[in-house]
Order: sequence, then structure tokens, then C-alpha cells
Amino acid sequence: MGRVTVRRPVRRISTTGEERRRPDSLAAEEPLEIRVGGKALAVTMRTPGHDVELAHGFLLSEGVLGSREDVAAARYCDGVDDQGRNTYNVLDVTLAPGVAPPEVGVERNFYTTSSCGVCGKAALDAVKLKSRFSPAASPFEVKTDVLVKLPDTLREQQKVFKSTGGLHAAALFTPDGGLEVVREDVGRHNAVDKVLGWALQAGRIPAPDCGLLVSGRTSFELVQKAAMAGIGLLAAVSAPSSLAVELAEENGMTLIGFLRGDSMNLYTGDQRVLT
Amino acid sequence: MGRVTVRRPVRRISTTGEERRRPDSLAAEEPLEIRVGGKALAVTMRTPGHDVELAHGFLLSEGVLGSREDVAAARYCDGVDDQGRNTYNVLDVTLAPGVAPPEVGVERNFYTTSSCGVCGKAALDAVKLKSRFSPAASPFEVKTDVLVKLPDTLREQQKVFKSTGGLHAAALFTPDGGLEVVREDVGRHNAVDKVLGWALQAGRIPAPDCGLLVSGRTSFELVQKAAMAGIGLLAAVSAPSSLAVELAEENGMTLIGFLRGDSMNLYTGDQRVLT
Repeated sequence: MGRVTVRRPVRRISTTGEERRRPDSLAAEEPLEIRVGGKALAVTMRTPGHDVELAHGFLLSEGVLGSREDVAAARYCDGVDDQGRNTYNVLDVTLAPGVAPPEVGVERNFYTTSSCGVCGKAALDAVKLKSRFSPAASPFEVKTDVLVKLPDTLREQQKVFKSTGGLHAAALFTPDGGLEVVREDVGRHNAVDKVLGWALQAGRIPAPDCGLLVSGRTSFELVQKAAMAGIGLLAAVSAPSSLAVELAEENGMTLIGFLRGDSMNLYTGDQRVLT
Repeated sequence: MGRVTVRRPVRRISTTGEERRRPDSLAAEEPLEIRVGGKALAVTMRTPGHDVELAHGFLLSEGVLGSREDVAAARYCDGVDDQGRNTYNVLDVTLAPGVAPPEVGVERNFYTTSSCGVCGKAALDAVKLKSRFSPAASPFEVKTDVLVKLPDTLREQQKVFKSTGGLHAAALFTPDGGLEVVREDVGRHNAVDKVLGWALQAGRIPAPDCGLLVSGRTSFELVQKAAMAGIGLLAAVSAPSSLAVELAEENGMTLIGFLRGDSMNLYTGDQRVLT
């Protein structure tokens, strides 16, 4: 598809009076509409490429899929735009017989059930999902000297970041520091969904034997995605939010942040990190 | 409310064998449910504080509001959680008489109108909104030596980032480099919504006389938010996506990226930058 980057002229100017006009590579961002059984479910702004993985990972994260057998087919819609071209921006997933389709809107029926009387915890309950796997049971263990090498290994494999400076990355890694899969995207959630979708398609979900590495910060949603895949350890180059740490603790997961240089912060789940 | 940061014990470890256990400040992340006229519209994961601004900015971005007169009231729901406490995580906005409420789900009626026959451009059309203001008409102009000082000025005013390293920031700035308002949030869209909501409440929307500054990357959605507020210039410390540049060009806006040190990249709308 060749749309991972887009070339555009850019004018580089500085206060020293230096000025250059040259073509620059930008990280491609395009909408992907994910349909299930022909019914539109969500639109995500993503970097094209690995769209089938993205859809698999998204539906795993939302609790719709638990294994690759839950999907009968995934294909681009063959409609065309007003110039007669397929944009490859609409992907339709057909579920296997017996797999329950998601509630349209993926708001978990939130809009119709919330009312003022239950508003205390309603907002949080609306976004929390229960994993069908147990991240707490993950036997994954990794040494600190393996962990500190991961960000450099990831960076080396971030092909598109090098040319654009504009992409997030995610990867699955093994106890010896090998990266099983690396994916990049303008959206950090999408990068993680692509990685988890790859694992789902490879028959590797749940993935209690892997750690998940992300290039940026950790939010509630990223911890939830790891939990939905049965992953026990999440390591991030930047800071976690308060709710990311709370959710990791609640799920018996290990959360690492500020993984830089030769050190890291260990927020919860110490038993999986061998010093 | 005092929940902008959360203190938690953290174990800092390194491969040199050094180890410390100490309390650490994390950027607070909690869900905010935004209701309009008592009806749940969206849940956003945000850093508590300036929630009324956030709701105003969100509804401006979604095309529901155009001025402060469009809002009759905005208040926290008084329901309580199972421990009898108000979580301050549900905010209800009452629109002024005659203001049309949004389609529930803010999917712009997308789920019901898309079909395979129109799927070519459907995904992009579904996320694009038309601004009631004209960012192209913005007379805003700024000198490069003012622009290059903005990131340092912003950083100095990012109180919470200093302690947590985990927050995005956004600001409105004037041609002389003064920051009118600075807001921080775990979500970069939220930081921008808080800034735009502040402007809306101050009767400053449209804001063609200001520039918008963001601490990170620029996506399609951030450019769209600026356009919905009638802002003509958006400057970012990091990279833009391809669609961010396209949308800025389409709207006659100025887009600056990689605003660092003494230089910057100018992608479109050169006329507003004075060298």
C-alpha cells in the first residue's frame, strides 16, 4: 500500500535567517472504519498498514474476540470513492458462527443504562472491561539488564519513526529480550492493537509468556489492552498515569515506567522483575 | 479538588544495583462522563480539574456550541458512589433554549447512514466537521523570534509536568508571545479542549487573534479543534501527521511543527509567519 509515510514540501526556517525548502516525510494518518458483519463499529485515525491486525487487536481489546477461531474472515470493503478508487479505509470483520457481535458504538450499552442515581462509579465502570484471561497468573519473569536494553532495540526497529519523528511503537518481547513483533502508528493505542492483533492471528493469545513494551506513556487504556490479552508485564519508556498503576495492581500485573538509561521505575508486580 | 497528581510508592531500580523506594507523583487520570441535558454523551479519560472548561471545549469541537450564550448551566451531577462520596466525574451541561443537542454518541449519525456503496470516502467524511467560523480569515501574524521562545515559556508554566513527567500541555498565545491560558492533561485532546473551553467561557471564541500551541505532535483531530474555534495558526513542538497538514491546508490555516531550539518546520499557511 505504500502509505506509511507521505512526502510533502516543507519550509524549514530559523531565527538565524537560515532557510531551506525541501521534501519531508510525514507519518501517514488516515481513518479506518472497522465494521463487524457489515455494521460500522468504530472509526480510528491510524497509519495505514497491518489493518487486519489492527482490527483483530481492537476487537480483542473490546472483549469481542478471544482467539483467531472467533474470526471467519476480514477483508477490505470493495466500495470506491468519487474517483473510482478503493481507499482501503474500510475493513469488515465477519465473526465465526456463535461469536456474539459487539454492542454498536462499543460503549458497552453505557448510554442506555447510566442514570444520575448511579453516577458515582458509573463513568469508570463504563470503561472497565473484564478480561477472559488472567494476567495475574502470568509466569513471565525478566532480568533488569534485559529490560534496560529494550528501548534501544525497539528504536532500531522503528523504521518509520526514523524518517518522520512522528510515530508511536509497541512490541512483544521474550524473557531474553528478543522482540517478537514491532508495530508503529500515529496512535499509541493503534500500535498496541496491531501488536495484539498479530499475536491473536498467530494463535498466541493469551500471551502470558511475553511482556508488552511501549515507546511512550502508559494510560488506563493501554493497561486494559494488555490485561485483555492475558499479558502480565507492561514496560513503558515514559510515565504512567495514576489509573494505569491502579488498574495494573488490581489485575495482578507488573507495571514499569521511565525505562531509560540503566534504570526504571517499578510501580507494581515486583515479582516478575529479577534484579 | 487536589487530584491533579496522586502520590504512590515506587521502587526505582537500576542495573548498577542501586535501589530506592520512595513516594512518587503520578499524573492523575480519571474518567469524566459528559452529559448534555442529563443524557450521557461521552466518557473521556482526563486529569481532573478545569472540567467545566473541558466540557465546553469538547462541545465546541463537536460543533454543538458556538458561544458561551449557548450554555445555560454546567454542573457536577450530585449522585454518590457506594461509599457515599461524590466522585466529581460526571458533568451535566444544560444547553440554552434553541441550541440543538448533539446526536448521542457524537458519531454524527454515522452508524446509521454508512453503507458499503458509499464506503470510499465515508470514513473520512464521518470524522470531518465543518467549522462555523473561518480560520482562513484569521489575520494573526507572528515573528519567528517570538515563536522559538514559546516552548520554554510553556514548559515554565507546566506545573504538573515538572513533578510527574506525564502531562501534555496546550496554550493560547498572542503575537507578542504572551500565553493567555495554559492547561495540562494526560490526554492531549483534553488539554486543547480545556484551553478552547476557557476561551469560550471568556467570550473569546472565535479566536482569530490567537495562536494555539501544543507540547506534542499534531494530529487531524487537533487541527480540527483549532478550526472549530476559528484559530488560524497551530504550532507544535513535535511532528504533524499527513492528515493534519492536509486539513490545515484545506482550511487555510498555518501549521508549524518541530518548534525546537531556534528553528521550526512550516508546512502550510506561510503568510502568518514573519521572518
